[in-house]
Amino acid sequence: MACVRFLNLKPYMSPTLLRPRFPTSSQLRAFSAGLMSPPSTAVIYETHGPPDTVTKVIQLPPIEIKANDVCVKMLAAPINPSDINRIQGVYPVRPPVPAVGGYEGVGEVHSVGSAVQGLSPGDLVMASPPSPGTWQTHIVTDRSFWHKIDRGTPVEYAATVTVNPLTALRMMEDYMNLKSGDAIVQNGATSMVGQCVIQLSKLRGIHTINIIRDRPGSDEAKEKLMKLGADEVFTESQLELKNVKSLLGNVPEPALGFNCVGGNAASLVLKFLRQGGTMVTYGGMSKKPITVSTSSFIFKELSLKGFWLQKWISSDKTKECREMLDYLLSLIREGKLRYDMELTSFNEFHTALDKALGKHGSQPKQVIKF
Amino acid sequence: MACVRFLNLKPYMSPTLLRPRFPTSSQLRAFSAGLMSPPSTAVIYETHGPPDTVTKVIQLPPIEIKANDVCVKMLAAPINPSDINRIQGVYPVRPPVPAVGGYEGVGEVHSVGSAVQGLSPGDLVMASPPSPGTWQTHIVTDRSFWHKIDRGTPVEYAATVTVNPLTALRMMEDYMNLKSGDAIVQNGATSMVGQCVIQLSKLRGIHTINIIRDRPGSDEAKEKLMKLGADEVFTESQLELKNVKSLLGNVPEPALGFNCVGGNAASLVLKFLRQGGTMVTYGGMSKKPITVSTSSFIFKELSLKGFWLQKWISSDKTKECREMLDYLLSLIREGKLRYDMELTSFNEFHTALDKALGKHGSQPKQVIKF
Repeated sequence: MACVRFLNLKPYMSPTLLRPRFPTSSQLRAFSAGLMSPPSTAVIYETHGPPDTVTKVIQLPPIEIKANDVCVKMLAAPINPSDINRIQGVYPVRPPVPAVGGYEGVGEVHSVGSAVQGLSPGDLVMASPPSPGTWQTHIVTDRSFWHKIDRGTPVEYAATVTVNPLTALRMMEDYMNLKSGDAIVQNGATSMVGQCVIQLSKLRGIHTINIIRDRPGSDEAKEKLMKLGADEVFTESQLELKNVKSLLGNVPEPALGFNCVGGNAASLVLKFLRQGGTMVTYGGMSKKPITVSTSSFIFKELSLKGFWLQKWISSDKTKECREMLDYLLSLIREGKLRYDMELTSFNEFHTALDKALGKHGSQPKQVIKF
Repeated sequence: MACVRFLNLKPYMSPTLLRPRFPTSSQLRAFSAGLMSPPSTAVIYETHGPPDTVTKVIQLPPIEIKANDVCVKMLAAPINPSDINRIQGVYPVRPPVPAVGGYEGVGEVHSVGSAVQGLSPGDLVMASPPSPGTWQTHIVTDRSFWHKIDRGTPVEYAATVTVNPLTALRMMEDYMNLKSGDAIVQNGATSMVGQCVIQLSKLRGIHTINIIRDRPGSDEAKEKLMKLGADEVFTESQLELKNVKSLLGNVPEPALGFNCVGGNAASLVLKFLRQGGTMVTYGGMSKKPITVSTSSFIFKELSLKGFWLQKWISSDKTKECREMLDYLLSLIREGKLRYDMELTSFNEFHTALDKALGKHGSQPKQVIKF
């Protein structure tokens, strides 16, 4: 099972964890026979609950680096909403507790097992496919977990390129064959996925119609999205009219819509869609459901679907996944794809977590630097 | 345009309509040169509005039967909800007013134009594809509109087999490849489509889970559906529990669901669906929208779509449509497909219309016999 080595914390999680332990016979063999990792400082949770109360930073003892293992010194990992949901225990697929937090991230090869090929100390590697357990300084796991990337990649982008930008790219490719001149409508357009959709669309000649919340600073948010390449940006209140399509000007009616909000913002995406269009839901930031009229299905022939990156990744698509990541990273290195992030030192993990939990209002994506 | 001859009532709809008219020169030619139809007694509406007030029965004068025309003496035609919606003016595709009501129906060939092949007086024919204008005693239109069927077919079934049974069959075939042993869940199971889904599924070894309203007589309704071959029948109130799937017993979780109600009844269909399942909406009897949680799309990977028979029929599928109708009619003749109807004489059209409008509570499908 792919995630086992990341997750197998049981031996360390006993009440005696933080005290020096008398080595078992197998550990004795490890100590005597094998290469050992450095200790790992990790954010762990032993029960599900509010992330700011159930997570703590502890030190895990060294672990043996077996023949096919790679030990990676982590450099950066983000705090994504799904990481928070895993800790809360509300994410449908989550590691058994106790567990180390995090799901995606980037690091530098620290040492490799005797049989490892194609990776050497100093190489920049991403956890790909991503797996639970990236919020720690040193990870030891099978070589197959790691994808070597160009050393010139900014680590904060390598750390964050999988969960959000890959979602944007996959959603643009999986549901219909969009051509230059087509259009996409999306809500939550200031999100990282939203920013990526705008830029990836622009690169392909696809128009984007973007819906954002009404809030202080929405004018600045609009301007920023326009600079990224958005064709149209509307706040929800601007769309309180019968015929939203009258606002489209030269932008064609979109055949594809993305929803990460729900409630009214989802209804607005549906309103913009053309006959026979598809809305893909990939998030529910408003925590409100999606409400659809019968006639939208029968007469407007809309289809509603969902996208779940974790499902796609787990369906044995490692090669395809890595090719898409390489493409996204090349765009990033060329300056063609960018998005907001805030970097925080691992020492201040709980400050970053509080921001990710929304305690200080809307904040850019929090990325931990180890 | 396929429907033109059915709809082209303009010459008859002037205020002078019911008085003898002085023939125009072209009509004079018709009178002198051509075969003429009998006059037609028709249910017409000159404006959109409440069907019981805007419809009236009038007599239309004879019309020329051209070389490729067939004159059909209608035998039976149903009053479907979409007929009512067309008269109300709320159906998205509807004939211009003034118009003759009705959309599907069956008749007997009365006379044929000089160039018509393959049809003779006395043949039983269906309007296929169906077109607006079947609520009248005599229709004259191009031969291509008519599909000859087995003389042994009960006319009330031939009159009703297109709109509802064909919807059931197409929905079972268009969205996934169902195999014997699979299951379907549907609400509105006592509807004509619902009854057909049960029987067509039974014939293919597909299980059906059926949801009906709570109302007096629901026990009898349940029993009737079980006799048609339903595996499970539940009233909505029986499904007010957290885990509806615990009620399934040996019936597998359904991958396909049909919704013709909306509101809570649609949510119940979604609850029964298995991971990755599809719900197809083809009606909205409750007039309530469909509400779906974000997690149903992302984590349960449900897809929601709509089915509109009229769209399917209009997409140049006449041959495929007629083959499916022949299959359904053969099942009917073999006694393998049946459903509730009430036959009413054309003389009492407005009595049948009142029943179809729900003025006398829940009633079986109203079928006019001419």
